[in-house]
Amino acid sequence: MSENTDQRTFDIDPLLATRWSPRAYSQTHVITAGDLGPCFEAARWSASSGNSQPWSFVVGFRGDDFHQKIVDSMASGNSIWAAHASAVVANIATTHDSEGKALSHASYDVGQSVAHFSVQANAEGFVVHQMAGFDADALGQALGLDGSQSVVTLMTVGVLGDAADLVEKLRERESVPRVRKRLADIVTPGDAYA
Amino acid sequence: MSENTDQRTFDIDPLLATRWSPRAYSQTHVITAGDLGPCFEAARWSASSGNSQPWSFVVGFRGDDFHQKIVDSMASGNSIWAAHASAVVANIATTHDSEGKALSHASYDVGQSVAHFSVQANAEGFVVHQMAGFDADALGQALGLDGSQSVVTLMTVGVLGDAADLVEKLRERESVPRVRKRLADIVTPGDAYA
Repeated sequence: MSENTDQRTFDIDPLLATRWSPRAYSQTHVITAGDLGPCFEAARWSASSGNSQPWSFVVGFRGDDFHQKIVDSMASGNSIWAAHASAVVANIATTHDSEGKALSHASYDVGQSVAHFSVQANAEGFVVHQMAGFDADALGQALGLDGSQSVVTLMTVGVLGDAADLVEKLRERESVPRVRKRLADIVTPGDAYA
Repeated sequence: MSENTDQRTFDIDPLLATRWSPRAYSQTHVITAGDLGPCFEAARWSASSGNSQPWSFVVGFRGDDFHQKIVDSMASGNSIWAAHASAVVANIATTHDSEGKALSHASYDVGQSVAHFSVQANAEGFVVHQMAGFDADALGQALGLDGSQSVVTLMTVGVLGDAADLVEKLRERESVPRVRKRLADIVTPGDAYA
């Protein structure tokens, strides 16, 4: 994997180090609800504000109705590759509690939960790619969500396919090394990391 | 650790399974910037919308000015235990880009980044406890943040101390088993997890 060219100052756990977001998914690999069990279990045990657990997930398996609804909501630049994935998931935030009070950290907590999902997915041999480019309102309606919930992100889950099957523009992006801001630029004081 | 009473249907990676949020921190353990390097490295390599990386961190070590500023911003129910931690961190979202455009997934992405931090911290033998109970505006001002940034959460980092040192109410909470909603209640379709 070309992402091994990543520049790291400190060693981190391999499950975190090798996580990445590919677009070339196997178009034939089949995933089952059981296969995803450990991933959702990891998501379930994530931390949240006041243990509010403001997350839920709708999962579609290639060929079923939920898969179609989720793919239909995607921007075309995403669906062109994401439709091939064995599973697609709508990551949903409970934005208001049962008394109508806003849960201010709902989106943040869903982010944590999905991060845990993606780390466990890596342990299971799956690759995950999250996306924000989709019609959240249309999908919320298609899934029958009420006003206390909204879809924050989508993600694909499956196994790596052949990058040669991607359109040229995406094929090039698949092999570009992962880049990040320098550690000293995101931590204050940062002199120890310069 | 009493959290081993957790009920899990599926096995997950030990780094995710054993993560928890204690309040009893060692009041003498010293942490260095180098000690936290792998944790911030993990945070750095988290996923984000369009690779926007809308996260930054201000870290205070017990006894220094940043530690004091961060503790001063906490609700009293948090500072009573969190002040003892070797390090406290302000988790900051860049909510607007350089052209003033809102980054809609900034909070979500900071959540992911902090989740990665906490998983790596567990690998390093540290415990992390995030909190939302603090004065974000006052702390942002004390830290000199501009209008494009805001503190989303705080977290403590250190090693476990003696729960007997906590006030009685918190001491009891320290040994309560971790609980979560059932897997079938957060995943649709959930019949495979019932």
